[in-house]
Amino acid sequence: MRTVYLDNNATTRVDPEVVQAMLPFFRDQFGNPSSTHGFGASVGAAVSKGRRQLQALIGAEFDDEITFTSGGTESDNAAILSALEEMPNRTEIVTSAVEHPAVLTLCAHLEKTRGVKVHRIPVDRHGRLDLDAYRATLTPQVAIVSIMWANNETGTIFPVAQLAEMAKEVGALFHTDAVQAVGKLPMDLKSTAIDMLSLSGHKLHGPKGIGALYVKRGVRFCSLIKGGHQEYDRRAGTENTPSIVGLGMAAELASKFMDDETTRVKSLRDRLENGVLQRIPNTFVTGDTLERLPNTANIAFEYIQGDAIPILLSRVGIACSAGSACSSGCLEPSHVLRAMNMPHGVVRFSFARDNGEEDVDRVLEVMPAIVERLRGVRNSGPDRRSAEDLQCGLGLSGSRTGSRS
Amino acid sequence: MRTVYLDNNATTRVDPEVVQAMLPFFRDQFGNPSSTHGFGASVGAAVSKGRRQLQALIGAEFDDEITFTSGGTESDNAAILSALEEMPNRTEIVTSAVEHPAVLTLCAHLEKTRGVKVHRIPVDRHGRLDLDAYRATLTPQVAIVSIMWANNETGTIFPVAQLAEMAKEVGALFHTDAVQAVGKLPMDLKSTAIDMLSLSGHKLHGPKGIGALYVKRGVRFCSLIKGGHQEYDRRAGTENTPSIVGLGMAAELASKFMDDETTRVKSLRDRLENGVLQRIPNTFVTGDTLERLPNTANIAFEYIQGDAIPILLSRVGIACSAGSACSSGCLEPSHVLRAMNMPHGVVRFSFARDNGEEDVDRVLEVMPAIVERLRGVRNSGPDRRSAEDLQCGLGLSGSRTGSRS
Repeated sequence: MRTVYLDNNATTRVDPEVVQAMLPFFRDQFGNPSSTHGFGASVGAAVSKGRRQLQALIGAEFDDEITFTSGGTESDNAAILSALEEMPNRTEIVTSAVEHPAVLTLCAHLEKTRGVKVHRIPVDRHGRLDLDAYRATLTPQVAIVSIMWANNETGTIFPVAQLAEMAKEVGALFHTDAVQAVGKLPMDLKSTAIDMLSLSGHKLHGPKGIGALYVKRGVRFCSLIKGGHQEYDRRAGTENTPSIVGLGMAAELASKFMDDETTRVKSLRDRLENGVLQRIPNTFVTGDTLERLPNTANIAFEYIQGDAIPILLSRVGIACSAGSACSSGCLEPSHVLRAMNMPHGVVRFSFARDNGEEDVDRVLEVMPAIVERLRGVRNSGPDRRSAEDLQCGLGLSGSRTGSRS
Repeated sequence: MRTVYLDNNATTRVDPEVVQAMLPFFRDQFGNPSSTHGFGASVGAAVSKGRRQLQALIGAEFDDEITFTSGGTESDNAAILSALEEMPNRTEIVTSAVEHPAVLTLCAHLEKTRGVKVHRIPVDRHGRLDLDAYRATLTPQVAIVSIMWANNETGTIFPVAQLAEMAKEVGALFHTDAVQAVGKLPMDLKSTAIDMLSLSGHKLHGPKGIGALYVKRGVRFCSLIKGGHQEYDRRAGTENTPSIVGLGMAAELASKFMDDETTRVKSLRDRLENGVLQRIPNTFVTGDTLERLPNTANIAFEYIQGDAIPILLSRVGIACSAGSACSSGCLEPSHVLRAMNMPHGVVRFSFARDNGEEDVDRVLEVMPAIVERLRGVRNSGPDRRSAEDLQCGLGLSGSRTGSRS
């Protein structure tokens, strides 16, 4: 069975050039970059190169503004906790209702255990932030604003440069989880008031287990993980050199291909959306029509619940994801969909470098029958089977674990 | 120039079987294990296998006692901070004076910012823990004891099973940083009172950027990095699947080869120590003669300071490390050597799987002349050059960053 992977917002295939770049650092240049001997020195140079490649991709002014971490979740945690530590007189956080669990779970924990006040800015039906509500929460009590650059489910892009300027007016730090945006949107951080930014390797054809936190020069920072003096004292632990090299290469490839890829991927995405909307009644695209990631299609199918469509697509070798919330295949819509007041069966198709028109055509070939079948199930009277029944019947229940999907 | 790598306590070459095991997870089985579709499912099974391989190596009773982290430093931080969070009425930590910076830096920070009282148990001239002092600190105020299984510089092994039993008597948790011990010493955690244990992949021929924290069932745990529900809610963030698979394979290889390797590596180590002591006057071996890692030789050369020997050895392609403390080649002895009251030029040679007799012979071939030269420098009157001068002159100053060396 030919497989079609359209779940690139969850994770991407590592680019072969990235794997090639990493390989020498497992067996040959395996030294510890903190060592003074020759085995360490060459590795240290490779780490520096990775830092500059990432600097170029996000338009940071200085390479030492890049700190390597184990991924987006760690970066988010580090940014928020650092702000609270460095600004002990400020006890409020502003975030959005549609952030990734890395931000929302931490905020809920801080609210419960440390008495931090958390403002969660709502979004409208298109996933757009309520700017008036945002403005109203900005006071000198706010230590940090943490609002994502682009939403992982809908692809809606938030006006982070503007939000950062507004945060600056009350002396709050501005952090953005840009895990879904880095490599997909051009960035020039040095021209913005953004203080901190999180990114992750495996969302841009780099390896898993590596990410970075951008910290603008002059921003005081307190490390989350303490120990040795690695990463300018911002992140202790032996540097993950193969993955740093891999992330650097992924950043370089993203810089190189971004313009062409954006056009190509957007055209695939639009082809899919138009094809589905033409072929299947009672469907609509969610998210902001204009301010949206070029690779993300989030399509609502009325009269269908939960994970049913992705489960049936998986049976025919197509990977995509549903906007459902939690582990063990429950049918609750995700916090993002709830925030948008969007209870329908919503399916996310997310494209990347490896996709082609044949992937779109395959989805369009099978979708009408799947939707018809599911809607038929729903309308088959008192014995109608829920998506959960279907899932169990098909033996496809898995564990969604609130991951960076 | 043939190179000789004898700095395996800093980091090890990744085993070729480990690299082979990892490769499919970059390009083929690249899915997110939290996804419900087929791309995720097979990867989830690989993560489970890695967990069982690690469980077998350390003798954990259940595989869910293993939580994957980004490495030893993160594991240490997570263990200590969790104990304080879960036992808010206990405000003291017991540790040793010779722990890794991952523990000591965190403890110093907690002392300064949270008013935690930290007891640092001293060691004697052989690096052995003062058991009376340890016993005296154990009170119901202690939340956690964190004492390493084996010291990274001297190789001295601490009686952690006994220490854990003693901690239990006052209801304190017992954590051990076993980064240097896992894969080198047989372990059967299920038969001990050890509650938590940190380990790191790159010390046992696995990849960098991956490690684990063992948490005994029944021990309440609060995650350091919050977000999704990965790792039984103990460590958020997309699973680093290639590295988890690699660490699993490294654990399996360590289990398989440990007996033979221990014998072989110990005989190389002893050959080096005896050879140096026979050929070079005024030298002695530090650390506990009996209770010591089989791979570690820590040799003191009287009348020589700091990093001088490793720098000259590096010039002839031999990698080892010095017991000096900090970055930028300063001459202060490390905190471990200071705790042992050991101010001499101490050099650590640490062996592993890839070493052979020819490595030992090469060191023995060049050492006498190097030591003679350095001692000559020292005794050449008022113009004598320090090791720092030598280092600058040789262009070999590097950045030691308090890493897991």
